[in-house]
Amino acid sequence: MKDASMIRSKTLRGGIETLGEAPVVILSRPQMAENVGTAARAMLNFGIYQLRLVAPNFGWPNAKALMAASGANEVLNRMEIFPDLPAALHDVNTLYATTARSRDLTKPVLEAEQVAVAAHQAIADGHRVGFLFGPERTGLENDEIALADAILTIPVNPYFPSLNLAQAVLLASYEWHRQRPERPLPASTDKSVPASKADVHRLHEALMVELDGVDFFKTADRRRTFALTIETMLERRGFTTSEVHLFRGIVKELATVRRRKETAP
Amino acid sequence: MKDASMIRSKTLRGGIETLGEAPVVILSRPQMAENVGTAARAMLNFGIYQLRLVAPNFGWPNAKALMAASGANEVLNRMEIFPDLPAALHDVNTLYATTARSRDLTKPVLEAEQVAVAAHQAIADGHRVGFLFGPERTGLENDEIALADAILTIPVNPYFPSLNLAQAVLLASYEWHRQRPERPLPASTDKSVPASKADVHRLHEALMVELDGVDFFKTADRRRTFALTIETMLERRGFTTSEVHLFRGIVKELATVRRRKETAP
Repeated sequence: MKDASMIRSKTLRGGIETLGEAPVVILSRPQMAENVGTAARAMLNFGIYQLRLVAPNFGWPNAKALMAASGANEVLNRMEIFPDLPAALHDVNTLYATTARSRDLTKPVLEAEQVAVAAHQAIADGHRVGFLFGPERTGLENDEIALADAILTIPVNPYFPSLNLAQAVLLASYEWHRQRPERPLPASTDKSVPASKADVHRLHEALMVELDGVDFFKTADRRRTFALTIETMLERRGFTTSEVHLFRGIVKELATVRRRKETAP
Repeated sequence: MKDASMIRSKTLRGGIETLGEAPVVILSRPQMAENVGTAARAMLNFGIYQLRLVAPNFGWPNAKALMAASGANEVLNRMEIFPDLPAALHDVNTLYATTARSRDLTKPVLEAEQVAVAAHQAIADGHRVGFLFGPERTGLENDEIALADAILTIPVNPYFPSLNLAQAVLLASYEWHRQRPERPLPASTDKSVPASKADVHRLHEALMVELDGVDFFKTADRRRTFALTIETMLERRGFTTSEVHLFRGIVKELATVRRRKETAP
């Protein structure tokens, strides 16, 4: 167990070192240690690793937070704790404050996606970017939001808008990752090549021969109509070559069984 | 307390009824009841309300799930439980299976955002769309993924890719909501009008007068340079009219205090 955990930890450190610059996540006055752990996990899921707490309502180090982090220990090990918000923001150039409620403050309001695009630009320009989140129940105070350059908002169902702290961190982090300019698109698991038209056509012909054998169509009119329907169906499925061969094998086998029955005494 | 909870519940039902068609979320063989609650909450945050369980590993109704739902009770009340996956999919036309791992199956792989766009189109066309999620630790089996039209994948940090079940549901639901064609953009809290150029210019002049009064610039060269720097600074801040008036008030007040001191005996 000890060895496996050491290997995991090493891999993770290697990962963090290669992640490049990312926003700093600042949790102001968090009330529950578990949420710090789940926030750390959510951050690392999307390559964000700098976490700062302002005046947390619990002691540190904290076993509950470590449990909830589910392996994102490196984020907790690097985490810094500050007595007040200005101290936690000492090196931050651009700050986005996350709040669900609209306020009377004069601030631009950006959705998480727009913030992520702007944050990538700011970090490319050498600025340090902060994402600020308030306490679980009450959210950020107006004097905390006043320090921000803009408000980060997450679009939600207006009838049920309440996100928990770690979920808000998750969504802001997800958008940061999604907007990475260098991010590769997902590799399709569909490595197969569609069957050639000739292969599909041969399958169609084989099927028609067997259906004629059992007088499936009854009339020439019905045969013409169904022939077209069947060919369209076979073409639109996007079968692979091996699937077409498998299908022909099935048709042949079923027909053989039928013939054996017909010729049986 | 009872009245308040009834009002809340009523509001929520009213909300669900106005949400319109949305994908069905199917959790196959969930192991922990809490995750069903957090998934229900995450769904309702983004206007998804039809939840189905396949062969859950716990009894129902379940107090842990209800606690974790944090008020998304309507989703749990409407939830359906099925003995197997085909039964849970009986009316689903298009199924997206969520999996982090690449498999040997021949399926298109779409990111959550692309799935959301496709799902809105499919639902507009009258189809029923399902989002399928596997058990917490093991994920979906290959024979479950085989029933899907495409794989839904969430882009993550490859060094720390493990999302929990409710977080995966949250992100798929978030993208569904984000891609709503009719969704309004966030209303900026910035309702104020920038100050007129004349207002800013008068502030600049007032400030220069006071700075000349204390011989701030020393030389005419320095005065020219600083005057430009100060005007640029005042312009780029995007002050509102009331902020400019406040700033002029501050300059005047500070100058008055200084003059009083100078003329004091």
